[in-house]
Amino acid sequence: MSSSFGKTITVSTFGASHGYAIGGIVDGLPCGFHVDIDELRAFMRRRAPGQNQLQTQRREADIPEFLAGLVDDMTSGSPLAFMIRNTSQHSSDYNNLRDIPRPSHADYTARVRYGDMVDMRGGGHFSARITAPLCVAGGIALQILRSKGIHVHAHLKQVGTIQDAPINLANPDMDTIKAVSSEPIAMVDAAKRKEVEDLVYKLKSDGDSTGGIVEVFATGLPVGIGNPNFDGIENRLARTAFGVPAIKGVSFGSGFEGCSSLGSLQNDAFTMDGDVVKTTTNNSGGIQGGITNGMPLVMQVGIKPTASIYTEQNSVSLSAKEPTKLVIKGRHDPCVALRAVSIIEAVTALVLLDFLGEVDHELR
Amino acid sequence: MSSSFGKTITVSTFGASHGYAIGGIVDGLPCGFHVDIDELRAFMRRRAPGQNQLQTQRREADIPEFLAGLVDDMTSGSPLAFMIRNTSQHSSDYNNLRDIPRPSHADYTARVRYGDMVDMRGGGHFSARITAPLCVAGGIALQILRSKGIHVHAHLKQVGTIQDAPINLANPDMDTIKAVSSEPIAMVDAAKRKEVEDLVYKLKSDGDSTGGIVEVFATGLPVGIGNPNFDGIENRLARTAFGVPAIKGVSFGSGFEGCSSLGSLQNDAFTMDGDVVKTTTNNSGGIQGGITNGMPLVMQVGIKPTASIYTEQNSVSLSAKEPTKLVIKGRHDPCVALRAVSIIEAVTALVLLDFLGEVDHELR
Amino acid sequence: MSSSFGKTITVSTFGASHGYAIGGIVDGLPCGFHVDIDELRAFMRRRAPGQNQLQTQRREADIPEFLAGLVDDMTSGSPLAFMIRNTSQHSSDYNNLRDIPRPSHADYTARVRYGDMVDMRGGGHFSARITAPLCVAGGIALQILRSKGIHVHAHLKQVGTIQDAPINLANPDMDTIKAVSSEPIAMVDAAKRKEVEDLVYKLKSDGDSTGGIVEVFATGLPVGIGNPNFDGIENRLARTAFGVPAIKGVSFGSGFEGCSSLGSLQNDAFTMDGDVVKTTTNNSGGIQGGITNGMPLVMQVGIKPTASIYTEQNSVSLSAKEPTKLVIKGRHDPCVALRAVSIIEAVTALVLLDFLGEVDHELR
Amino acid sequence: MSSSFGKTITVSTFGASHGYAIGGIVDGLPCGFHVDIDELRAFMRRRAPGQNQLQTQRREADIPEFLAGLVDDMTSGSPLAFMIRNTSQHSSDYNNLRDIPRPSHADYTARVRYGDMVDMRGGGHFSARITAPLCVAGGIALQILRSKGIHVHAHLKQVGTIQDAPINLANPDMDTIKAVSSEPIAMVDAAKRKEVEDLVYKLKSDGDSTGGIVEVFATGLPVGIGNPNFDGIENRLARTAFGVPAIKGVSFGSGFEGCSSLGSLQNDAFTMDGDVVKTTTNNSGGIQGGITNGMPLVMQVGIKPTASIYTEQNSVSLSAKEPTKLVIKGRHDPCVALRAVSIIEAVTALVLLDFLGEVDHELR
Repeated sequence: MSSSFGKTITVSTFGASHGYAIGGIVDGLPCGFHVDIDELRAFMRRRAPGQNQLQTQRREADIPEFLAGLVDDMTSGSPLAFMIRNTSQHSSDYNNLRDIPRPSHADYTARVRYGDMVDMRGGGHFSARITAPLCVAGGIALQILRSKGIHVHAHLKQVGTIQDAPINLANPDMDTIKAVSSEPIAMVDAAKRKEVEDLVYKLKSDGDSTGGIVEVFATGLPVGIGNPNFDGIENRLARTAFGVPAIKGVSFGSGFEGCSSLGSLQNDAFTMDGDVVKTTTNNSGGIQGGITNGMPLVMQVGIKPTASIYTEQNSVSLSAKEPTKLVIKGRHDPCVALRAVSIIEAVTALVLLDFLGEVDHELR
Repeated sequence: MSSSFGKTITVSTFGASHGYAIGGIVDGLPCGFHVDIDELRAFMRRRAPGQNQLQTQRREADIPEFLAGLVDDMTSGSPLAFMIRNTSQHSSDYNNLRDIPRPSHADYTARVRYGDMVDMRGGGHFSARITAPLCVAGGIALQILRSKGIHVHAHLKQVGTIQDAPINLANPDMDTIKAVSSEPIAMVDAAKRKEVEDLVYKLKSDGDSTGGIVEVFATGLPVGIGNPNFDGIENRLARTAFGVPAIKGVSFGSGFEGCSSLGSLQNDAFTMDGDVVKTTTNNSGGIQGGITNGMPLVMQVGIKPTASIYTEQNSVSLSAKEPTKLVIKGRHDPCVALRAVSIIEAVTALVLLDFLGEVDHELR
Repeated sequence: MSSSFGKTITVSTFGASHGYAIGGIVDGLPCGFHVDIDELRAFMRRRAPGQNQLQTQRREADIPEFLAGLVDDMTSGSPLAFMIRNTSQHSSDYNNLRDIPRPSHADYTARVRYGDMVDMRGGGHFSARITAPLCVAGGIALQILRSKGIHVHAHLKQVGTIQDAPINLANPDMDTIKAVSSEPIAMVDAAKRKEVEDLVYKLKSDGDSTGGIVEVFATGLPVGIGNPNFDGIENRLARTAFGVPAIKGVSFGSGFEGCSSLGSLQNDAFTMDGDVVKTTTNNSGGIQGGITNGMPLVMQVGIKPTASIYTEQNSVSLSAKEPTKLVIKGRHDPCVALRAVSIIEAVTALVLLDFLGEVDHELR
Repeated sequence: MSSSFGKTITVSTFGASHGYAIGGIVDGLPCGFHVDIDELRAFMRRRAPGQNQLQTQRREADIPEFLAGLVDDMTSGSPLAFMIRNTSQHSSDYNNLRDIPRPSHADYTARVRYGDMVDMRGGGHFSARITAPLCVAGGIALQILRSKGIHVHAHLKQVGTIQDAPINLANPDMDTIKAVSSEPIAMVDAAKRKEVEDLVYKLKSDGDSTGGIVEVFATGLPVGIGNPNFDGIENRLARTAFGVPAIKGVSFGSGFEGCSSLGSLQNDAFTMDGDVVKTTTNNSGGIQGGITNGMPLVMQVGIKPTASIYTEQNSVSLSAKEPTKLVIKGRHDPCVALRAVSIIEAVTALVLLDFLGEVDHELR
């Protein structure tokens, strides 16, 4: 249950960092959709580790093998199932972690939750590696959405304290965002990209880490999808986004900043754009009462600094019940937010497709 | 479906701002629990409108009448059902809103979603009035949690740009927070309370509004409740919190701020407190991998400025498809965040009780 | 949770046999549908006790009061909520049942499940009285379905060993079934009705009871609604029908009888009816692979003999842990199957409307 | 969604008759359980085709390969995922079925539901082949249940019109049922086994088929698991059992037969067995009000005659919209009920484990 989400399009994931394979099932995709496999692989590469010096040196090809649900690259009407083989594991790096939990990792809580037999090598099922199946499913969702005129692109709004140039929420330049989204550092402002690059190299040499904020936009959504109360656009997007490891916060439109402003400044006045109702600003992030209003959907997702740092940290021996020191080995990104851009696009696409399935007869 | 949440404890709400009654059903409460009705009414009063000059002058007694599930104030094993009669409606205030949607309200999206017959007087089912049933259910959940040593209290972290004194996330003074939580302005710092009071009166006279941030703490939670991935503590809390009208963001622990910090500063080092594993800081907000770690749970919820302001705003006539001006009547709070403190406590308690029901045999 | 069902149309019920009120919430009904309240009351009377000498002498007017979701008898877009006051309770009839469970009732299992404080007067939440809210919700569903050309009617296929005339599964005479469905004994064959009447009077004087089989038909369903595997028409119908007290079995089309026949006799051969694909027989009951095929939907529901009989029975004292005798008081039907006809129509309509909501944009 | 079931233990299946692989994910299994792989394979062989002359000659080794969730045959705390490669496909046998639907198969309804691109070779996702993943999941569930003293075994109550010796519902001889359950014809009465064998050979030579009834027993269940109303033992068992292809009916205890009897004969009188409350008969099938009462759980499942028969049948050409004749090729069982015995055991075990997970802390 906890490894699944979605109502009309259900995604279930499996796998752990170390083991034979990771993968997933996507139930409810429209039948007869042609998946562009090359494009999907390109999308997967954006998340894959080991692409450049800014990232962990763990390399995974992350090529999905489809087990069912695709015939000649066309969805066949039955659940889509796929796996990605785990190829690059240094399990011995994790030997000392059975007894000494890593700070701000799930090592300790997983052991209490599941018992001593839980397999937490590489973070187990809590590892960021499970975002690879999300990207397979989401990469396909992005293609389906695009075929319906819906575009989803994200950028790095912030890394550490370095902020990207602000995007116009009411009229985001989607071509630009799309272009930068596949950069190693997905910022619109080239100068800031360089600043971030320097920061990440410094963190790498310091054995430290930082976090960031990913901001995602979706345009072309029909007006009136979503629901009030507990099953609206924000509810499902937030619930799902918090399924990505390391997420600490989710906000929409003008977000927390807007909360300290005034109603007279934040209200999105209505206007007519020809026959179409629009708003002149978009502090609401495209959603009113859990339902799309035709303006671009805007969500921010806060990602904490990578918990796996290389400096010595205080921890405890769970068996001896006494304090001890811990030095983490393994290969870790100084800033996972960099690779989170495509993951947030994937999650957003899956949730939007799920909502679309509630009104689009074809999509079920 | 969209009016429900919860797995082991399911809450379903009904009602709209204008109509005979609002209310709800709570299924899954433990049988034989004695509800302190006086305490529940006192809790309800914290949310109720018309309590003081800082709020809307709409007065509702907000006294729940129990229809089923309580016998002599004891839960009887069958679903708890209750209603609250709507007593104070000025429906005519809303006459002009059928055609002219209020900016940053759900008037327009609801009409597209449900059609022209949707009853949006007073915000309809999108109205903040539906938080009253949440407070009935949550007020009972708070009592059950307390009987198990779990305490949930919230304060106003921020109103407009005025920030309350920071709370120690690892060791919050729950008595103090509890004490201030029932103040009209639930801030720990008395000087800031006065500042907020002045601000609210000024906004009232200006016909403007502002937002704020509510921060909630829960102590006494067992270690190891929750789940990984898409059904952890953050997932369900966020999904449910976004069911409260006007919420723009949800974060945990050190939140978005922590995302711009360093791993070496954010990681919560483990330590022993006698035989018990603790962390020295609590930037994680009491959760690792979706599972409680025994530290206080900490969540921030951002609430946007009240959308109903009294200055003239730009809107459109949906029938004429042309721009027009709108002046809102009705009675509205200059800052709904003030009354949101108890609502967020209620929602938090309901979600935590829901998780507790997964491990506590009595609770199902 | 256990008191709810449905995905696009969710029904939640509350209440127990003895208490202030029973009722329910229906979320997801189309907005702007005009409910014929007189017709609904007439439908409710078919289930209501005390209508004639064949039934329990407990009289309940069973008039629903709508709390929310209806404005001028029109659905308003927010959840429909209603209650029915309990007016006729002889709670003292149940005094001896706290310690001595009634055979084939839930008295004992409810006590183990919920503890000693569970309120089981009159059967508590397990009572057949909770089918009244089902009939309110289902009565409205029947009206909505009819507005879309879908008709749902049931008859008594069997009472005790007395069988009604067989209905042609491929071409049921819906007018006739509709006409008899509101008879006290809903059989097509008048001679059999008389036999059943005699049987019921005899059982009444004997203090005994019997069961029966209700068979329900739905015509006018679109082809292609439903789903494969675990969420098809049969899955949801069966899951929901077993929520009606006293149900022992559910079957479709030619049912268990068809299972002892031959493939060459049971297969429903295809044929063309003009441009429309039909089958010449309908042993499949209108469903193939969980999906409607355009033929009439046919379901049988087996209802056990009323467990409350007036002859002395063997039971145990739960406190003394020893055998004892039990004589049941209270007012009970000799054959609840007689009143189950409208309940099964209601349940069937709600489930079909739920499926229709998956493809019919208006219906969500 | 439609390919999943379960709340505390969730099973999701994928795959179609023809394609690379079938398989599934099981989420929620207890961590640290040692799976006896040899026993699991032996269990799988009971369902596997091609084992003897009574069955289809399609041979599949049906060996599950575990992709995740097992480390050294121990459940690791993360979702269990597995696949079974499809090895024996005669896809060309199905070439004429694209246009001419097979009577009483899902060929036609699937095409309307999913569109013309749906892959229905071999029945697609509607094929009985998807019961293989159910048996992998269920085979493991059976082992976990047994470790808790719960035993689940089934027999063939009926094949065609041939009935097995009746089983004492209150005191079934589980050793005997277990012994016969793995026979090619799982009947207790050896003479009837021979009769069925003769019948099946005759049907085979006639190109015809028949159905049957599987009856399953579960002993050792704790008292008080399950829920009232719409989420009781019967509701979930029925919902899930109808997910097995070809199921036409589900009943409990004395089933439909009991419905034509008298209350005085059907009521299960209580008695003390030492300190334990029992009933002297078990017409209720171990369930009262959706909750276990400590008596053996008893369910009957009716399976229709195999729809794929070899005699010429009437069908239609969907493209030409005119009647035509159809002769089915491929390899099909004259009586799928024979192989359904282990499938029903698997499904029953999975649902019971799901309920057990609601009260057994270890099981979540």
